Amino acid sequence: MRNCIVAQSGGPTAVINSSVIGIFDENLKTQYYNNVYCGLNGIEGILRGDIRNLSEMDYATLHNLKYTPSSGLGSCRYKLKSPEENPTEYNKLFDLLTSMNITTFFYVGGNDSMDTVDKLSKYAEIINSDIKFIGVPKTIDNDLYITDHTPGFGSAAKIIATTTLETYLDSSVYTNNGIFILETMGRDTGWLAASAALAQIGGKPVADFIYLPEVAFDVDKFLEDVRAKFEEQNQVYIVASEGIKNSEGVFIADTQPTSSHDNFGHAQLGGVCNTLKELIINAGITSRVKTLELGVIQRCAMHCASDRDIEEAHMVGRDAINYSIDGETGIMVAIKRVNNAPYVSTTSAVPVCEIANKIKYFPTNWINEAHNHVTEDAIEYVRPLVQGEPSIYTELGMPKFSLIR
Amino acid sequence: MRNCIVAQSGGPTAVINSSVIGIFDENLKTQYYNNVYCGLNGIEGILRGDIRNLSEMDYATLHNLKYTPSSGLGSCRYKLKSPEENPTEYNKLFDLLTSMNITTFFYVGGNDSMDTVDKLSKYAEIINSDIKFIGVPKTIDNDLYITDHTPGFGSAAKIIATTTLETYLDSSVYTNNGIFILETMGRDTGWLAASAALAQIGGKPVADFIYLPEVAFDVDKFLEDVRAKFEEQNQVYIVASEGIKNSEGVFIADTQPTSSHDNFGHAQLGGVCNTLKELIINAGITSRVKTLELGVIQRCAMHCASDRDIEEAHMVGRDAINYSIDGETGIMVAIKRVNNAPYVSTTSAVPVCEIANKIKYFPTNWINEAHNHVTEDAIEYVRPLVQGEPSIYTELGMPKFSLIR
Repeated sequence: MRNCIVAQSGGPTAVINSSVIGIFDENLKTQYYNNVYCGLNGIEGILRGDIRNLSEMDYATLHNLKYTPSSGLGSCRYKLKSPEENPTEYNKLFDLLTSMNITTFFYVGGNDSMDTVDKLSKYAEIINSDIKFIGVPKTIDNDLYITDHTPGFGSAAKIIATTTLETYLDSSVYTNNGIFILETMGRDTGWLAASAALAQIGGKPVADFIYLPEVAFDVDKFLEDVRAKFEEQNQVYIVASEGIKNSEGVFIADTQPTSSHDNFGHAQLGGVCNTLKELIINAGITSRVKTLELGVIQRCAMHCASDRDIEEAHMVGRDAINYSIDGETGIMVAIKRVNNAPYVSTTSAVPVCEIANKIKYFPTNWINEAHNHVTEDAIEYVRPLVQGEPSIYTELGMPKFSLIR
Repeated sequence: MRNCIVAQSGGPTAVINSSVIGIFDENLKTQYYNNVYCGLNGIEGILRGDIRNLSEMDYATLHNLKYTPSSGLGSCRYKLKSPEENPTEYNKLFDLLTSMNITTFFYVGGNDSMDTVDKLSKYAEIINSDIKFIGVPKTIDNDLYITDHTPGFGSAAKIIATTTLETYLDSSVYTNNGIFILETMGRDTGWLAASAALAQIGGKPVADFIYLPEVAFDVDKFLEDVRAKFEEQNQVYIVASEGIKNSEGVFIADTQPTSSHDNFGHAQLGGVCNTLKELIINAGITSRVKTLELGVIQRCAMHCASDRDIEEAHMVGRDAINYSIDGETGIMVAIKRVNNAPYVSTTSAVPVCEIANKIKYFPTNWINEAHNHVTEDAIEYVRPLVQGEPSIYTELGMPKFSLIR
C-alpha cells in the first residue's frame, strides 16, 4: 500500500484546482499510488485529521473541479514553526502520514507553502523518514523565484487585461470623458498591473499609464503626466498596482488624509485608486474621475480564465507525480519556457529552499524610462500566458462548479 | 432617396451596439432605406453634424460591432429642451434630417432618450413633418415601463451572478471565513442586485442576503440578521444595491460619518458596501469583512454577456426597422415575453409617452417578508435572460472589438 496526499494553502487562484486534478490524473495513468488523499484547509486541516479520499470520488465531479475556481480543498494561512519550536506538530504529522501509508505530500501554494515544504522535507531527512514533500506552485502574484511564471497568473492577467479593454471602451463614449483608474492587486510586485498592457486597440495599449511598485511613485510627475495627457486627449486611462510606494517606501494608498482606516485605526489595504483620484481632483485637473478596484475578481474569474493557464496548472500537478516517482523531495515543480512563439513550456524540479521566502520582482528594465508604463518585452512575456478560452461547464446560463468539501 | 439615422444615448451597456447592427441588418434584408447613417455622440453630435454612413463601411467590422461592448457610436447625456424653450435646436435638427433625406431617426437609449423621441415625434406632428422617431430600449437598470425587460439587463445580470458565484467560492476557503459584501449598481431599482440570486450551488442561492432600494433598509434588523448568520455558518455573503435607503429615504451610503466626499463636499455615489462594512465592524460582529464594488464592469462585460441578450438587442433593432416601414412614430420597441420555459419573446410598439420619464421598480411582492432576499418568482423572471454564451472574436487570447468612431 502506497498513498499520497495533496493540500492547498494561501490565497486562491482561478486554476489552483487544476493542479490537484493534474496530480490525480497522472496517478490514474501511472497507478503509482493506491490512493490520492486530500487534506482540507491545508496543513492545518491535515493536523486535525480532516482528510478525504479523492480516489473514492466520482470522476465527473473531480474533472469539473479542474474548471472550478478557488481552493476546492479549502485553504489556510498557517506558518509552520521550526521543529525545535513545535516538535509535537512534526511528530503528529509524520505519525499521521505513516499510519495512512502516505509516502508523498504535495502542497499547492505560494511562498509560505514552499517554506512549509522546505521545513518538512528537511525534518524528514533528520528523522530518516522516506516521506517525500513536493511543492506545486500557485499564486496570481507571479512572484515565485526560478519558475518562469506561476499557475494562476495567466488567468489573473487575462481578466485584468479584458476588464481594462472593456472599461476603456465604457469610459470613452462621451465628448467630455474623464479619467479612469483601475487598481490591481500586487502588494509587492507589479506583474498584475503590467498585464493590463495586453489590452490593446490597433496594436497600442489602451492604458495611458501603468504604475508598478518596483519603482518609486512620484506624485508631482504623476500629476504632470496626467494633466498633459488629459489636455491632449480629453480622457486618461490609468492602471495602478495597489502596492505603489513613494521614494520613502510609504504606500501611496496610505499617504492621503482621507485614506480609509477601520475603527481600530488600521489602514485598509487597497484603495490606491481613491488616493490617486483625490490627487487628481485636488490638483484641479478634472473632477470627472472614476475608479475601479478589481479586488478578488482577479483570483477567481474562471469564466475568463486562460486555457493555457489551466493546462499548465494541470501540467505542474502531473509532473509533481512523476518527480515523486523519481524520488525527488524538497523540490518545487517550476515552469520552464522553452519557446515563446510558438509557445512551448515544460517543467523542472527546483530545490524549494531556493524559492521559499523570496520575492521575484517585475524586472525594472521592463519598465519604461518615464516609470509610467511597461516595455514591449513585458508584453511579449505575458501574452502567451493568457491564450485560449476554456470550455467550462454551464447550466442555465451560469457556470456549473464542483464542490467536494 | 430614403435614408435613416441611428444614434445612442445615455450610459453604455454590453449589448447596445447589437441593436444598431439589428437596424442595419434588417435594412440590408428589406432594402427599405438607401443609407443607414449614424450620429456620433447622440443627438448632441448630430446637431454638430457628426454623422457617418454605416452603409459605406466594411461589413465584417460592423458585424463584430455586434459583439463589442459600450456605445460604439459614442453617447451623450443631453436633455432636449421643449420646442418653446429652444426652437432653434428643433429647426436645425429637422433641416439637417430633411437635407439628408432622412425619414426615420432611431434612438437607442433609456428614459431620457425616450423623452427625446417623445418631444421630437410630437414636434414633427406640429410642423407636419413626415420624419419618424422611434425609440430602441437599452439600459442595464431594467427600469423602463411596459417592456418586459431591457436589452443590456440580461448581460449585466449574468456578470453579477457569475461574479457572485466566483467570489463566494473565493471567500469561503478558510476555516475562519469572514463576511463578503458585493455592491451592485441600481440607484433607484433593485433589478441588478436581485439577479445575484441566480448564483446558486445545489439549487440554493449562495448570497445569504440581498438588499434592494424598493424597501426601507433597517440597520438594526440588518445587523441582527448578519450576526445570527455569521454565528450559524461562520461566513456571510451579502449583496446590496448602491441605492438602498433607510425609512426616511436617505441613501445608506450617505449615513456613515466616513462616507467619502469629494473636495467640493459632494457625497460620492456608490460606496454602500463600505458603509455596511463599517456597520458590521462597529457592531463587533467581525473585523474580517471584504467588499467589492462591481462598478462599470456591470455595463461592459461583453466577455461574459448573455447571448440571448445580444440577440434580443438585435431583435429590437430589426423590429424598429419594420415598425418604421409600417409608418409608426413616437413609439418604443418593447420586448414581450410570450413564454417563460421554453423562453419565447417578441416585440410590440408602445407609445413612447407611456415610457418616458417613468421608472419601473422591482415588484415588492418579489421581495421576501424579511426584506433581505428575493423570491423564486424573481429568479424565474431573470433566469432566461442570462442564457447562452456568445462566440466573441478573440485574437491572442483577448477579445477583439470593433471601433467605428
